[in-house]
Amino acid sequence: MSESGTRERAANIGVVGLAVMGANLARNLASREGNTVAVLNRSRSRTDELIAAHPEAGFVPAHSFEEFATSLARPRTAIIMVQAGAATDATIDELVRVFEPGDIIVDGGNAYFPDTIRRERAVRQTGINFVGAGISGGEEGALHGPSIMPGGSDDAWETLGPILRSIAAVAEGEPCVAHMGHDGAGHFVKMVHNGIEYADMQLIAEAYDLIRRGTGKTPAEIAEVFAEWNRGELESYLIEITAEVLRQVDAATGAPLVDVILDQAGAKGTGAWTVQTALSLGVPVSGIAEATFARSLSAHPEQRAAAANLPGPAVIPDPADHSAFIEDVRQALYASKIVAYSQGFDEIRAGAAEYDWSIDLGAVARIWRAGCIIRAQFLNRIADAYAQQPELPLLMAAPYFAEALGRGQESWRRVVIHATRTGTPAPAFSSSLAYYDGLRAERLPAALVQGQRDFFGAHTYQRVDRPGRFHTLWSGDRSETEA
Amino acid sequence: MSESGTRERAANIGVVGLAVMGANLARNLASREGNTVAVLNRSRSRTDELIAAHPEAGFVPAHSFEEFATSLARPRTAIIMVQAGAATDATIDELVRVFEPGDIIVDGGNAYFPDTIRRERAVRQTGINFVGAGISGGEEGALHGPSIMPGGSDDAWETLGPILRSIAAVAEGEPCVAHMGHDGAGHFVKMVHNGIEYADMQLIAEAYDLIRRGTGKTPAEIAEVFAEWNRGELESYLIEITAEVLRQVDAATGAPLVDVILDQAGAKGTGAWTVQTALSLGVPVSGIAEATFARSLSAHPEQRAAAANLPGPAVIPDPADHSAFIEDVRQALYASKIVAYSQGFDEIRAGAAEYDWSIDLGAVARIWRAGCIIRAQFLNRIADAYAQQPELPLLMAAPYFAEALGRGQESWRRVVIHATRTGTPAPAFSSSLAYYDGLRAERLPAALVQGQRDFFGAHTYQRVDRPGRFHTLWSGDRSETEA
Repeated sequence: MSESGTRERAANIGVVGLAVMGANLARNLASREGNTVAVLNRSRSRTDELIAAHPEAGFVPAHSFEEFATSLARPRTAIIMVQAGAATDATIDELVRVFEPGDIIVDGGNAYFPDTIRRERAVRQTGINFVGAGISGGEEGALHGPSIMPGGSDDAWETLGPILRSIAAVAEGEPCVAHMGHDGAGHFVKMVHNGIEYADMQLIAEAYDLIRRGTGKTPAEIAEVFAEWNRGELESYLIEITAEVLRQVDAATGAPLVDVILDQAGAKGTGAWTVQTALSLGVPVSGIAEATFARSLSAHPEQRAAAANLPGPAVIPDPADHSAFIEDVRQALYASKIVAYSQGFDEIRAGAAEYDWSIDLGAVARIWRAGCIIRAQFLNRIADAYAQQPELPLLMAAPYFAEALGRGQESWRRVVIHATRTGTPAPAFSSSLAYYDGLRAERLPAALVQGQRDFFGAHTYQRVDRPGRFHTLWSGDRSETEA
Repeated sequence: MSESGTRERAANIGVVGLAVMGANLARNLASREGNTVAVLNRSRSRTDELIAAHPEAGFVPAHSFEEFATSLARPRTAIIMVQAGAATDATIDELVRVFEPGDIIVDGGNAYFPDTIRRERAVRQTGINFVGAGISGGEEGALHGPSIMPGGSDDAWETLGPILRSIAAVAEGEPCVAHMGHDGAGHFVKMVHNGIEYADMQLIAEAYDLIRRGTGKTPAEIAEVFAEWNRGELESYLIEITAEVLRQVDAATGAPLVDVILDQAGAKGTGAWTVQTALSLGVPVSGIAEATFARSLSAHPEQRAAAANLPGPAVIPDPADHSAFIEDVRQALYASKIVAYSQGFDEIRAGAAEYDWSIDLGAVARIWRAGCIIRAQFLNRIADAYAQQPELPLLMAAPYFAEALGRGQESWRRVVIHATRTGTPAPAFSSSLAYYDGLRAERLPAALVQGQRDFFGAHTYQRVDRPGRFHTLWSGDRSETEA
């Protein structure tokens, strides 16, 4: 079935789906010593174009699933890079048809982890291994080295590990890939990565907006602030590209590009998944939620038009000392970022407990240090925290972060107060601080909520002074009964 | 199959499931002129107990589904009041087995609306009508008059309407029941009702906490504040029972009950459903989300212990004028409440568009005026707003609410500033204000987020000055291309 030229060059890895991400991943694989890469696309033309454009890659082209299977050495290993959803299911079905027990199918797309759990269960019946692998880093990451979060079985990882290590980004000598746990663990971790990314981006956006409105600096001037921040504890890819975006001038108008871009944010849904999953797990991820909501709020122009005349504060004072204000914003950003990551790691910990995955939280931090969108120096501190205390119940309470929060909290409060006083929306900054103060509180008014719930729904309550569940006979003589 | 005594007294309505809610609903039905109520429970003893305890009700007891079906006049109409989930599915299966085309099965439990959509589709195949009906008001409401939110077909509503009107709460002469729309519309609206209830309760809890920490007043003194508030624009059942709960003294210790109740809030999941659904619909319901998260945060004692030593503000100033502060809190509570309801009605509007339900938003407000947990004077203002403008894109921008927000916003800001300065967690107050300021903003930093997304993921952006989607060649010559 295969062409004679390719039969002799058995590939050790294949890629199905040659849109930008798939093509770049295939080129990355082909560029590493020892790899021969089979490629397959639904439409033949895209395969031919890739082969023609990159003769150096030595791709083994296939134009049918049968040919693709024939071109791969055993155990066959193929990475699917097609759209999440029905296209992924259809591709899996085709591969299952032509593969054999012991072969490995990797879904490298942005699958929702419950789908990965379902697919793994179904494919496993055939004796074929199914691995859902989160791949982060966008097009550039796929080409030069992404951060990879594979799930699936230990057996599959044994074969797959060396191949994925060969193409992953490298941080301080370590490849940014680790086996997260069985079935859906990889896509789960990737989902939370994206949720944290939403929060990180929103926090940066709020910092920019506060500085712009508060100091009147131009986007180009604020770009310099971010470039400066990128040399300190905030050093990260997102801070770096923020400076680049703010520096960009629109050729058509001569205005800063950020002023020409329509202020309605899009979303691919992974932020929403992260929050929906957290709600099912009972994990408060308020920073990620506010970031997700901020995007959807921005994307409702008809509501924004309706709200345009709602009144704001009468007097808007400018901060007197611009440098001090900018330093306050920097501290607020760092503190809020700690909260966002703490909430995200909390969700991974809760997910691991729920789905019985043994996820090494320190390894998660380490494989995010390069290749992915949220890559940052900062992740070394998270890895350190879990190295010191693997069962850490709350990341932000680890000594390094507790110290940083303590150092920054007065600045953080000043910034939220400034935002509130001036009517500058800072939902992620203020929500993160409220979360911080909520967890710190010795007593919470949740006791009143429990009293209300017992009053109208007989939901019972616990007491601080003895075990058991109790109910007050609110519509009776108001004595207390043990439930 | 039925006993001879019951065959002669055909019931016009039946209730399956005689736990407190079901028993109370059955008693409510039986108390209304013209109703004869058949009752059935899985365990016979509970049926016998209900019959013995309430001879005045004239119940027609059944001890099997066959007997239950025989005891009902046609079209048979039965309300299921069993646990959501598998128990509901099993009960539906039994009723489908013994019912005939044209009969009506009502699920009066707290079903998740996608389950109701699925069940309606399945039951419809048999020619039997299936109606998911949200019933709010707890045990007391079920007995004396709940607020009822039925979905299902127009045909079923024709038979069911008079029966439900006979038992519903009455507000200003109108029964608190209306047909919400087909299949899952009723349970959808009930879900959002509960989500709003979460927000309302959390806002009240924050108001209480701020006053207590800010003024040192005792719970009994704060009960008087709430009792006073209940005579003004905040008048509502939840404010009323808050005063009752705060007034309550624990008999065992002599302490205020609210200080004896463990401050870990429980949840039955409807708040989480509301937020999860809103995320799928792209509706920012940040107030409901923060309320849901506040409960889960409170219920993590191990994390709260870990956070106990995180530093708070150095100096905690007391508000100088307690009366003025309390009035500020009242205004902040009212403004935040407007936001919460606005977000909730926004979700209903989006749900109706998504699922093709023609939900009358004014009718929703009217049937919530009595019987349910969030009943309040306030709902008349919402009904008025939709009467004036049925296609209102944003409830809080309606003239009455815009005026109230304008009047309250400076107080609202002072309260959030106070909370931030003193380290008092007020996540729902501050989130609602950030939402308000976000929707008001002429420009949002969402433009920067779009720039970042285009930089790392080529997600493209729109421009303010012409249509189309654009991409800057960030890793090329940084010119702009049309996508």
